[in-house]
This record gives sequence, structure tokens and C-alpha cells, in this order.
Amino acid sequence: MSHAFFTLGEIVTELGGDLIGSPEVSVFKIAGLNQADEQSLSFLSSSRYASQLTTCRAACVIVSPQYREIAVARGPTILCPDPYLYFARLTQWWSRKTRPPSPVGIHPSAMVHSLALIGEGVFIGPLAVIEAGAVLGDGVFVGAQSYVGPLAHLGARTRLAPRVVIHEGCSLGADCIVHSGAVIGADGFGFASKRSEQQPGWEKIEQLGSVRIGDEVEIGANTCIDRGSLGDTVIEQGVKLDNLIQIAHNVRIGAYTAMAGCVGIAGSAEIGAHCTVGGGAVILGHLQLADHVHISAASVVTRSILKPGQYSGIFPIDNNLSWEKN
Amino acid sequence: MSHAFFTLGEIVTELGGDLIGSPEVSVFKIAGLNQADEQSLSFLSSSRYASQLTTCRAACVIVSPQYREIAVARGPTILCPDPYLYFARLTQWWSRKTRPPSPVGIHPSAMVHSLALIGEGVFIGPLAVIEAGAVLGDGVFVGAQSYVGPLAHLGARTRLAPRVVIHEGCSLGADCIVHSGAVIGADGFGFASKRSEQQPGWEKIEQLGSVRIGDEVEIGANTCIDRGSLGDTVIEQGVKLDNLIQIAHNVRIGAYTAMAGCVGIAGSAEIGAHCTVGGGAVILGHLQLADHVHISAASVVTRSILKPGQYSGIFPIDNNLSWEKN
Amino acid sequence: MSHAFFTLGEIVTELGGDLIGSPEVSVFKIAGLNQADEQSLSFLSSSRYASQLTTCRAACVIVSPQYREIAVARGPTILCPDPYLYFARLTQWWSRKTRPPSPVGIHPSAMVHSLALIGEGVFIGPLAVIEAGAVLGDGVFVGAQSYVGPLAHLGARTRLAPRVVIHEGCSLGADCIVHSGAVIGADGFGFASKRSEQQPGWEKIEQLGSVRIGDEVEIGANTCIDRGSLGDTVIEQGVKLDNLIQIAHNVRIGAYTAMAGCVGIAGSAEIGAHCTVGGGAVILGHLQLADHVHISAASVVTRSILKPGQYSGIFPIDNNLSWEKN
Repeated sequence: MSHAFFTLGEIVTELGGDLIGSPEVSVFKIAGLNQADEQSLSFLSSSRYASQLTTCRAACVIVSPQYREIAVARGPTILCPDPYLYFARLTQWWSRKTRPPSPVGIHPSAMVHSLALIGEGVFIGPLAVIEAGAVLGDGVFVGAQSYVGPLAHLGARTRLAPRVVIHEGCSLGADCIVHSGAVIGADGFGFASKRSEQQPGWEKIEQLGSVRIGDEVEIGANTCIDRGSLGDTVIEQGVKLDNLIQIAHNVRIGAYTAMAGCVGIAGSAEIGAHCTVGGGAVILGHLQLADHVHISAASVVTRSILKPGQYSGIFPIDNNLSWEKN
Repeated sequence: MSHAFFTLGEIVTELGGDLIGSPEVSVFKIAGLNQADEQSLSFLSSSRYASQLTTCRAACVIVSPQYREIAVARGPTILCPDPYLYFARLTQWWSRKTRPPSPVGIHPSAMVHSLALIGEGVFIGPLAVIEAGAVLGDGVFVGAQSYVGPLAHLGARTRLAPRVVIHEGCSLGADCIVHSGAVIGADGFGFASKRSEQQPGWEKIEQLGSVRIGDEVEIGANTCIDRGSLGDTVIEQGVKLDNLIQIAHNVRIGAYTAMAGCVGIAGSAEIGAHCTVGGGAVILGHLQLADHVHISAASVVTRSILKPGQYSGIFPIDNNLSWEKN
Repeated sequence: MSHAFFTLGEIVTELGGDLIGSPEVSVFKIAGLNQADEQSLSFLSSSRYASQLTTCRAACVIVSPQYREIAVARGPTILCPDPYLYFARLTQWWSRKTRPPSPVGIHPSAMVHSLALIGEGVFIGPLAVIEAGAVLGDGVFVGAQSYVGPLAHLGARTRLAPRVVIHEGCSLGADCIVHSGAVIGADGFGFASKRSEQQPGWEKIEQLGSVRIGDEVEIGANTCIDRGSLGDTVIEQGVKLDNLIQIAHNVRIGAYTAMAGCVGIAGSAEIGAHCTVGGGAVILGHLQLADHVHISAASVVTRSILKPGQYSGIFPIDNNLSWEKN
């Protein structure tokens, strides 16, 4: 974290909350209750950690009103209805204040085709490639060595980290973030067997569709979203995907669904809105998940799930002797 | 899909099949039975979908002879022995007709070593790197920002999407396709423990082998195929690998085997020909799979499988209450 | 493997061991007992393979003293306490002797910021990007098209393969190796729900920490190590990570721990030293693993493991009929 300090007064002026204590107190960093020292601003995000509150050394803690008494007894306190959400906004504000402002302009080493449309206030980093017909909205940030294919669209303020690939014709909405190594719009995995002609092998099915991604979607490092075979692969607004996730062709993911790392979604699966999928889970092809379905980490979804709820299927781990006995 | 239209007459002239109906009818897109509208050409790939045939609104459907009567009753029909294979070839023809022709030439920003051997009709995209001694066959396509290491060989017409890495000395046959982010020929994971010398840690085993890939192999986005430790990692002709697959050192994969996304194959495993491996499956090291073995998605192969057939091992998913009870 | 040959005399002079047989005998390659021919130098790494010793055709075999008699009966022999460790060092020596020496200098197409600090004897490959404030120690090797972000540190002799990304402020120790496609320091996956404000979706938690990596760490192709949310993600010295591994934010991995391909470690997990994690295993967030814990491939760790040992949890694979019955 960059070195900087802010007064509690500045923070509540910017982010709200009721400050109990001196607005002149300064904080130099944000830290969890256990890691916090006398220069830290900390927060209580869950009742699970409430016991850490009394021993926490932070200069100030952010708590919900139910913890007012305990918090104030130990020192300066910011009261707000949802400390974790407050903390999230605090990190954003902290980042804006302490990180250098995002650069603007096209690096001379970037290869920007003359038929690309580039909005206002765009940054295109060193050795990036922007192909013919690509459209970059205002305030778009293209990191070093990224590739934006022909006719791809990036909505306003969308940010590509270094070394992202957006293939031909794929579109992202506004305010998306795509992390390094992500590949949007590679061919889906589609082949027809030549068995009926008594020949070995596979005939490629050209993937004629594309990928359409809504606003405020975040896509993790080295995650892949394949283009559709005939229609499009669709990621609705507000979806959050972690690293090393595979989204196969023709998948549809509903708004605000979040998936942790290493998840695999097979072709043509339809995932509802407001779902969560734990790390390493696998969802087989052509299945449907209703809205508000939550899949535990490492579970394998082999049938459609049409009722909201939490679903699990993990083989329990044990020491080797016990496991071999079972 | 690009906007274009073709008559049924053109299509059967090019791809064969018996047309029942007017050759003057035009189609503007290819679509599944359920998605098809009056401008679509559709196809019945499996008897599972036969019930959708009568209600399908497509301008024409491609069916096998057993569905002739139902299909003709609803309108123009193309009869052929294997509609899914016909559909695959239709997508290829459609793609050739509607996508811009592949460019030829070396982009001025590409770094092509003077000791690389470049065939006829080759394309090398912007900011690609071709190292000394690399050999690119006729018609090879190297996407933007790809890297072809020293002494690597790419067979005729092999295509690298943008941002592929082919390491030193690795060879691909003719007509291969490698998708963005794939890494061919990184070091295998090999270390010897220093325990016997009462020291902590690991001594690296230099990976002195390479990767040899046959003709017509397709390799998905961000998939990794490691170089062999002493001999080579071998991928035989016609193998199809989806995205985010890990192929460890010294693995051998037999001809025409296909693997879905997120599969992991540990070191020195030998997979037969004509196998399929479902998404997320793991095959442990030093195992053998016979030809025509089929592994279900997310299964873990812990022993050699010497008899053809379908094999599965997935823990069933359930709602959380039931799962915790079990 | 490059073509070259060495005498047994040269080898024992360099690497030690007792040679029984003529120092003039030449070997042209290293090979396993089964693959060895008359030009090969082979080794017996485990008693499991002892039966292959008598039929092995190698020019010379490396064995431990207990196999002296059998080995000498078949021909030239090198005796040493740990043949596998000897083999590892032999591959390193072989590699140094047969591979071209590592180049030095900055390729003219690399984009090196004037405020980067570049040590002695550094190589920076074609089209690499080194940002302001980055520090590259003596003898560092940056492969083609790699990206080293602002204020990132690479310790002496650390090597990045082509197309590695090291994000802002991340640090690697000395003698590390990072393979192609790896992404070090992308944002961790952190969001706060807006539920409490009756709004859908997620508020991003800016990831203000970094990644700190010790000496002699090896990181596989397309592996991701996310930056910490407030503190740092920490990988201690001598850790070895295979390909396509996901290390989430705030994870700590103890010294000399090794993980095979496709492992996923969720946020804030703390893995001890000298652990091993088999391929495809998943370790859930906020768990602790003691030192010397060994997790079998494809197992899911759902609780902290505080006692050293081997732990497993895999659903057994079976042919489909039996599996469906169960």
C-alpha cells in the first residue's frame, strides 16, 4: 500500500458515516482487526470477528451501530450500516488518492489501425495492437501489449490490464475491468465426428458467433470466454469472474453472478442472475441454473438446478489411512 | 455472424445433399431448430431434437433420410446421411465466404530473425517475434504478438492466433490451430529433493526434451503443453484440446483424442487414440489409457484403464442440507 | 536434446561420484532405463525400477551403492548416494554445455523506461516492456514480450520466459524462474455486496497489497498469483509451482512447498513449509496447513490440517454401469 495519510474528518466527509472521536486523528493504512496497529483504520465486517474488537489496536474502527458501545469504549469509531461496503468504498477512495492518475494518450509504439475509432481521453499502452474497425469508448484504458481485434467494442471507461486479448467482433460494456492474460472470443470447442464416413477424426465447426459482455463486468487473469458457435456467448451486467475460469461457447451468465477461480462452465449452460459459484466447481453443458443458486467450491453440477439455494457435492478429505479404508 | 445470404442451390452444389424444394430459396444465417427464423437454415443433429422439427420456422432444414417425411411436410429440406457433419462443413464454407480472406505478408513491426526460414504465403502479424532457426511452412499464419522460439517448426497452413507462445525446438504439423494464450514447450515440472544431503529444497531437472505435435491438431486458449524431460511430449495427429488444459511433460496423446476444458494430464501419462476426456477431469501420472476410453467430466483417473468404454467418478451434487447429512 | 557427447571422465570430474569403468567411454544422451540405448547415460532413481537394470542397454548407469554389484555386472557404473539428485545436476550441466549461452543486452525493440534501474549483465528481449521504477538485478533475463510493471523488483539472475506479466510493485527474489503466460500481481477477487442498500451487485475492493516472492521460486506457465487486498500475498523461498495454478490474494505459501498443475488456493489460506499439493487439488479460503502436509491430487481441502501427513479425498472412478449403480 502506498504511503499516505488521511484524517478521519476527511474520510467521513467523503464517504459518510458517523464519526465518534476527533476528526483530526490521522490514519496511514487500512488493516484487518488482527493486523491493525496504532496507525491503522480497521473495520468489523462480520459478527464472527467481534471478539477481536476489544483487543484491536487500530486508531479507529468502522462498525455497525450494534457494536457502538464496545467500539467507542476502545477509541475513535465510525458508525455506518454496512462496514464491509464502507470498507470497499474506502479502498477505492484510498486508491484514487494514493495511486498515480491513469495516463492518457497513445504510446508511440502501439499499433493502432487507422480505421479504429478512438474516443476521448483514451490510453493505449506500449506495444498494444488495435485492429481495423475496433471502437474504444471515452476513457478506455488499454494496457501494454494488449490486443483488440477487428470490430471489437470497448465501452466507456473499460480497462484492459496489460496483455489482454479481445477477439474480432466481441463487445464489452462500460466500466468493465479485464485482467492480464484473459482471452475473450477464442473459438468455442466444436467438432463433428467423421465416423459416418468411415474416417477417423473431427471436422471443425467454425464458430460464427461472438461474445457480448455487459457493463461493470470484471474478468480475472488468464480467464477464457469463448465465442458462440452460431449465436453469442453472453455475460450480463455486473458479473464478476475470478482467474483461470473457462466459459465455453453459447453460455449465458445472468446479471451480478460471481464465480471464484478455476471454475469451468461447459457449452450452452445458462446460469441465472445473482448466483455464486465456488472455486474449482464444474457445470456441465446445456444445464440451467435458476437465479440465486449458490454452488459450493469444487462441486460438479450434473443436472439443472431450478430452485434457489446452496448446493454442494464434495468428497470429504481425510488422512490417507482412513481414506483408503473407505 | 456476418451478414450475407446464399441460395439453397449454391449450398448443395458446394456441399452435396439432396435438396427437396426450390434452389432459389435464400438463407441469411445458420441456426439451431429452436432459434431458427424464416431466414435461417437449420439442421437436426440428433433424434433427441426431432420433436422440434415440426414447429421449426427455418427456411430449410438439413435432416437424415429417416426424417424426410416430417421435414418435407414443413418445407424445403436437404437430405444427407449425417446432418451434423454437413452442418460442420457448412460453417466452414460460410466462414470462407463471409470472413475477409486471411492476409499475407510480414507486418513491419514484427521481429523476424534473419536466420528464420519463412515459406510462401505466410502472414506474420504485428509485434510477433520469430527467433533464429524457426521454420514456418507455406501458408502459415502467425497472429499478432505471438512468439515462435528458436528452431521451432510450424507445418504448412498452421495458424497461431494472437499471443501464442511456441518455445524453442517444438514442432507442429500441418493444418494445426493454436488459440491465444496457449504455451507450447514450457519446462516440465521436474525437481529432485535435496533431502539426502540434509538440505531443504529442490534441485531443478532441466527439461531437455521438446514437444512434437502432429497434423490437424487444435489447441485451446491458455492451454499448456510442457516439453519433455529427456524425450518429447507427443500429441498425435487430429487431437483436439479445449481451453485451459494442462499437459505435463512426457505425456503422449494418441490420434484423434479430444479433451474438454480444464483437463489436467500429469507427467508421463499415455492416452490412447480416439479417446475423449470430459471437462475438468484429472489423469494422474504414469498411467495408461487404452484407445477408445471415454472419461466423464470432472472424474479423476487414478489407475490405468486398459479396456475401452465410458468411465465416471463424480460425487453427486445435492442441496446443502442433504449433502451435510450424508 | 541437443547433439553433443561427453566422456564419463568429464562427468565425474564435474559432478562427483565413483566411476567404475573406463573414463574414456562417451555418452551422447541421458535416458531412462527403458529408453536407454548404447549411447545413453542412464540412472536408477527408485528401487521400483531395479528390475530394469540388468536389461538396460545404457553405456553407463548411475546407481546408489546398494546396486553396485548388479550394475557393475552389466558395465560402466557411476556410484553416488542419491542417483536422482545426481541426475538433476547432470541435466543442469548438460544444459549449460549444450544450450547456447544466455544472451546479454537490451533488444532495440524493448520499451525500457528511463527511470527503470537495470543491473549488470541483464538481457531484455524483443518487445518487452519495463516500466518506470522497476528494478532488475544483475544477470536478470527478461524474455520477449514480457511486462515488468512500475516499481516491480526482480532479484539477481531471475529469469522471465517470454510473455510473463509482473505487475506494479511486486517483488521476486534472486534465482527465480517464471514461465510464459504467468501473471503475478493481478487484482485479487474482492467485492462487497450492495445488498444492504437494496441495490443489486458488487462494489469493488481495490487490492492495495502486492506480491512478495522469495529466492529460488519457480512459477509455471499461465499460473496466476494475485496481489493482496491490504497486506501482501507471500511465496517463500524455494517454492515450486507448476502450470495453471491459481493463488488467490493474501495467501501465504511456506518455504520449499511444491504444487502440481491446476491447483487452486483460495484467499487467505496459509500453507506451511515443505508441503506438497497434487495436481487439481483445491484448498479453500482462510484455512491453515501445517508444515509437511501432503495433499493428494484432485482432493478438496475443506478444513485446516494441523498435523503433518498425507491426506486424500477422491471419488473413485469406475466404468459407467458400476458407477451409476452406486
